[in-house]
Amino acid sequence: MSPDAPASRRLDLPDARDVLAAAARIAPHAHVTPVLRSRSLDALAGCGLHFKCENLQRVGAFKFRGACNAVMALSDADAARGVVTQSSGNHGAAIALACRQRGIAATVVVPQGATRAKVEAMRTYGARLVPCEAGQAPRDAATAAVLAETGGVLVHPFDDVYVIAGQGTAALELLQAAPEVDTLIAPIGGGGLVSGTVLAARGVGERAGRRVEVFAAEPAGAAEAQASLAQGERVRNAGTDTLCDGLRADIGARPFALLQQAHAERQLRAILPVDDADTLAAMRLLWERLKVLVEPSAAIAFAAILRHPEAFAGRQVGVILSGGNLDLDRLPWAS
Amino acid sequence: MSPDAPASRRLDLPDARDVLAAAARIAPHAHVTPVLRSRSLDALAGCGLHFKCENLQRVGAFKFRGACNAVMALSDADAARGVVTQSSGNHGAAIALACRQRGIAATVVVPQGATRAKVEAMRTYGARLVPCEAGQAPRDAATAAVLAETGGVLVHPFDDVYVIAGQGTAALELLQAAPEVDTLIAPIGGGGLVSGTVLAARGVGERAGRRVEVFAAEPAGAAEAQASLAQGERVRNAGTDTLCDGLRADIGARPFALLQQAHAERQLRAILPVDDADTLAAMRLLWERLKVLVEPSAAIAFAAILRHPEAFAGRQVGVILSGGNLDLDRLPWAS
Repeated sequence: MSPDAPASRRLDLPDARDVLAAAARIAPHAHVTPVLRSRSLDALAGCGLHFKCENLQRVGAFKFRGACNAVMALSDADAARGVVTQSSGNHGAAIALACRQRGIAATVVVPQGATRAKVEAMRTYGARLVPCEAGQAPRDAATAAVLAETGGVLVHPFDDVYVIAGQGTAALELLQAAPEVDTLIAPIGGGGLVSGTVLAARGVGERAGRRVEVFAAEPAGAAEAQASLAQGERVRNAGTDTLCDGLRADIGARPFALLQQAHAERQLRAILPVDDADTLAAMRLLWERLKVLVEPSAAIAFAAILRHPEAFAGRQVGVILSGGNLDLDRLPWAS
Repeated sequence: MSPDAPASRRLDLPDARDVLAAAARIAPHAHVTPVLRSRSLDALAGCGLHFKCENLQRVGAFKFRGACNAVMALSDADAARGVVTQSSGNHGAAIALACRQRGIAATVVVPQGATRAKVEAMRTYGARLVPCEAGQAPRDAATAAVLAETGGVLVHPFDDVYVIAGQGTAALELLQAAPEVDTLIAPIGGGGLVSGTVLAARGVGERAGRRVEVFAAEPAGAAEAQASLAQGERVRNAGTDTLCDGLRADIGARPFALLQQAHAERQLRAILPVDDADTLAAMRLLWERLKVLVEPSAAIAFAAILRHPEAFAGRQVGVILSGGNLDLDRLPWAS
C-alpha cells in the first residue's frame, strides 16, 4: 500500500473506541435523531420497540454518519485530492454533502436502476455522477477507473474503518437515550451499519457492563451475508431480487470479519431473512403508526421482528430505521 | 347554567396560566414531540423553520393535548357520566384514547365523509360512534341528541376552555425548545389550536419579555375565520371546498373572542388563505424533505409560508405540524 494512502487504509479493523471518536467528530455536522415509540406496535410485536429515526438524519439516512466521519478524518492533503465513492444512493448523497461541508470535490459512481430521489439528492449536494452498469463487478471497475483518472481518495460505502465507526454512532446514541434497550436490530447490505452497531453494543458492554445483543435483517433475495456467516467465508450474491435497493451489495471484508467475530461471541445473534412482501407490510405499518417515512431497506428491520417474534419476545429492542428516501410518485404497495 | 355543569362550563376564557396548568396535567400522558429542522427548506422559504411534529403526538395529532387536558380535568362525578363529542377524526380519536386512559365511556358524533383512517382510530381506542350528516348544523343536532340520551359531558372539539389551553401546550413546548423562535404559525379550523397558540405566545411574553407573533393558515375553501375577523363577528362557512378535512368547522365562540383580542393587539398578525393545490405541493415537500407524514390540514401552515414569503422573511418561525392521519391506499397527489 502506498505511503500516501489515507489513514483509513493503514488501519485494520475499527473497535468501540473508534465509535466514540466518530461521535465526537461528527457531532458538529450530524443530527441527534429522535427515538420514537408506539404502544400499539409494541403490543403487535410482543416486545418493547425503540425506533431510532435515522430517516430523519441529514440526507435522510444513517449513511451521513459514516461518510461524514470518513471525510472529516481525512488529512488536508488527502482531502485536497477529492473523494470518490460508489453508491446506489444514500451513501453517495452523504459523501456529496460531507464533501460540500469540507469544501472538497466528490465523485460518485452510480449503478443503473438507482432510485431517482436518491440520485437527485447526490446531484443537489454537488457531486459529480459517473453512471455504470448494475452489479458489483461493474461498480468496482468504474470506481477504479475514476480513482485512476482523478487521483482522488476512495471512501468505500461500507468496507472502511471510518465509515463503519461512523455508522455505529446511531446505535451509540440509541443506547444512551434508552438505557433499557437490551437488543438491537439493523438491516444488512454491505454490512457497515450492522458491524458499527456491534461495536457500539460491545463498547457499552465494556464500559457499563451492559449486555446488548444484535440482530440483522437481510432481504431473502440478497441473502449473501447470512450465507457467508454460515459458510465461514464471504460469498457473493448470484444476482439480487429485492426492492430493498440499499441492501443489494455483497458484504464487505471488514464488516464480515467483525460480524464473524461477533457471531462467535454470540453478540451477533442471527441474520434474519425477510421476504419483500413482509417488508412492504411492515413499511406501511410504520408509516401509519409512527407517521414517519421509511424506505423498504429500513422497514426490513421491523419486518424481521414481526416475522420472527420468538427471537424478540419480552425484549427491549432498538430498531435502526436506516433511511427514508424513496420516490413518492406512487406508493410501493399501490403498484 | 346548571350547578352541576363541569368546571369548563363555568369558566369564561382561558389565559396563559391555563396553558401552563394544562402542560402539567397532560405530562404523564402526552409525548413531548420533536422539533425538526431542514436547511434545504429554510433556504426555500427564506426564513428559519422549526417544525413542531404533532403528527408524532399520540393518536397522530395535537388534538390529544386538548382532549387529554379536558378529560383529566373532569371531576370524578362528571367523568362517571362519560364524555360526548363531535369530530371528523382526530379530536374523536383523542377523546377516545383519553377516556380509555381514565377508564370512562366516550361517544363520538362522526359526520359522513370522515377520513377512514381517523374513524378506524376512534373505534380502535374504544369509542362508541354515532354517524350524522356532514355540516355544522347536523353535527350539533346529533350531538345534542346524544347528550340528552346519555347524560354525558360534552367536550367540544374547540369551543372549550380546557381544550384550548391543552392545544396551547404544543406551542409552549416549541417556544421552550427553540428560544430563537419569534413567530408561530398553525392551521385554523374551529380555532382551538390557534387560540391556544396565542395564549402560549402571550405567556412567554409576560413571563420572559419575549415577543412572539402568530399567524394562522386557513383553506381558501373554508375561509370563515378570516372573514369573521374582518367583519368583527363570527360568520359561517356557506359550504366548504377543501381537502383539509380537519379544517372545515366554523370558528368557535371562545376561539373567536381570543383571536379578535389578539388581532387587535397585533399578536395575531393575519389569517392567511391557502389554496388546496399549494397545500398539496407543500405536503409533498414535507414528506420528501422532513421524512414525516403530515396530512393536508397540517401541511397548510408550511404552504402559507411559501405562498406569503414576505410575511416571514428573516424570521425564526415555529410551524405546528398538526397531524399525520390520512388514508394510505393512495397518495393525494397521485389521484
